[in-house]
Amino acid sequence: MKLVRFIERGQEGGPARWGRVEGEQVQPTAGLAGEVQGEPLPLSSVRLLAPADKSSKIVCVGRNYFDHIKELGNDKAGLPHEPGLFLKASNTLAEPEGRLVYPDWTSNLHYEGELAVIIAQQAKNLSPVEVPAAILGYTSALDLTARDLQKTDLQWFRAKSADRFCPLGPSIETQFDPTDVRLQTRLNGQPRQEGRTSHMIFDVTQILTYITRFVTLERGDVVLTGTPSGVGELQRGDQIEVEIDGLDVLRFGIEE
Amino acid sequence: MKLVRFIERGQEGGPARWGRVEGEQVQPTAGLAGEVQGEPLPLSSVRLLAPADKSSKIVCVGRNYFDHIKELGNDKAGLPHEPGLFLKASNTLAEPEGRLVYPDWTSNLHYEGELAVIIAQQAKNLSPVEVPAAILGYTSALDLTARDLQKTDLQWFRAKSADRFCPLGPSIETQFDPTDVRLQTRLNGQPRQEGRTSHMIFDVTQILTYITRFVTLERGDVVLTGTPSGVGELQRGDQIEVEIDGLDVLRFGIEE
Repeated sequence: MKLVRFIERGQEGGPARWGRVEGEQVQPTAGLAGEVQGEPLPLSSVRLLAPADKSSKIVCVGRNYFDHIKELGNDKAGLPHEPGLFLKASNTLAEPEGRLVYPDWTSNLHYEGELAVIIAQQAKNLSPVEVPAAILGYTSALDLTARDLQKTDLQWFRAKSADRFCPLGPSIETQFDPTDVRLQTRLNGQPRQEGRTSHMIFDVTQILTYITRFVTLERGDVVLTGTPSGVGELQRGDQIEVEIDGLDVLRFGIEE
Repeated sequence: MKLVRFIERGQEGGPARWGRVEGEQVQPTAGLAGEVQGEPLPLSSVRLLAPADKSSKIVCVGRNYFDHIKELGNDKAGLPHEPGLFLKASNTLAEPEGRLVYPDWTSNLHYEGELAVIIAQQAKNLSPVEVPAAILGYTSALDLTARDLQKTDLQWFRAKSADRFCPLGPSIETQFDPTDVRLQTRLNGQPRQEGRTSHMIFDVTQILTYITRFVTLERGDVVLTGTPSGVGELQRGDQIEVEIDGLDVLRFGIEE
């Protein structure tokens, strides 16, 4: 099943709603994966939003693909022994098919395509067998990063948490096996990142058991699982696509 | 005016409510600083919660008092030129008069008493003259920190964002001048941190204009303004108090 968050076109100031995709229609629901509510709408009559909101935590794993660790010169210490976690704030959420105005305070904005996990229910101290029930589904993400500030700032706050630095979506796929799928990021149609989730250093089960030792995850929280090699600079006017086999393609642009 | 978030005693599973303190009563309101809603309740009949919720971003300034920079040996580079920002996730919020179970994964848990700003309304690219209207009020915070993991981890995620690592409250004081007030943190009744907000390297206006160049702040977001010197270890059974002149005292404990 594909779950989406949307607003009806022409009612852009109104509240965002949740629904599920049924063919060419969206069936609204009472909240994320909630009960059916009201009549179906044509998909063409809605605009899809990031399938998360301001109450969603966004927890990210850095350095989870060895080839990416190597390309940034972070391989001197070998493989990480534990997931390296950081946060993106909820103001980073941006809608699929959206755009970002290139910020005037960075000169090295990078794309990082990633598989995102959406949490189904409150979760603390998960054991591996409890992980599947804690997952609602999966979607695609761009972990936009101001690479220059990542190197100079005290913490990765400006580098990772600026407005619209986390395009997400378009839909949450509830039937998805993350074990070994292809992830490709294309820049202006050209493949740049190519990875398989089987190459993650820490898999989804290890990531969620680890995070929940320290942090309670809540329904609707988002976990970004790291990026493969091939990251690179974005320029004004660029179009970026994240395609993960089995998920809808995430498309996003940088304003001219 | 003092604004509080609370639940009625005996209805602990129910939803949290907002209200304002009027003498020995709490007048419930429709949301944070909202319209009056229903009858006043005796203060003794409610339990106060952290005056923020899971949709609140918590943005923190590290290294904002020079004597604290010095005590941690971070003074080699001199004074910071810009605020060093980081996030605490909303799962860190803990109620005043609450307790924390000492986590089994750290052996160096520190207290850091701080002045917290509560945001009144959506704010981006604030100019200095716009700052006062963007502030709803002030409260007290403890930025609990696993000092050992702060040094070893990729980013300050476990060190700063573990569950209940941000005791906050008890009330938001809307009439408060943060320019030059005393901040004292007491450990088991003994003064340990003693500072004045006039010694901040970046004052509240500078902090908010800086953050909002990159990040949209929303109503109810929380900004922690840094800690003076005197930070130190917490042990099981410790009682900690943060007293900022003009604000209610924040009390918090570590379980035996």
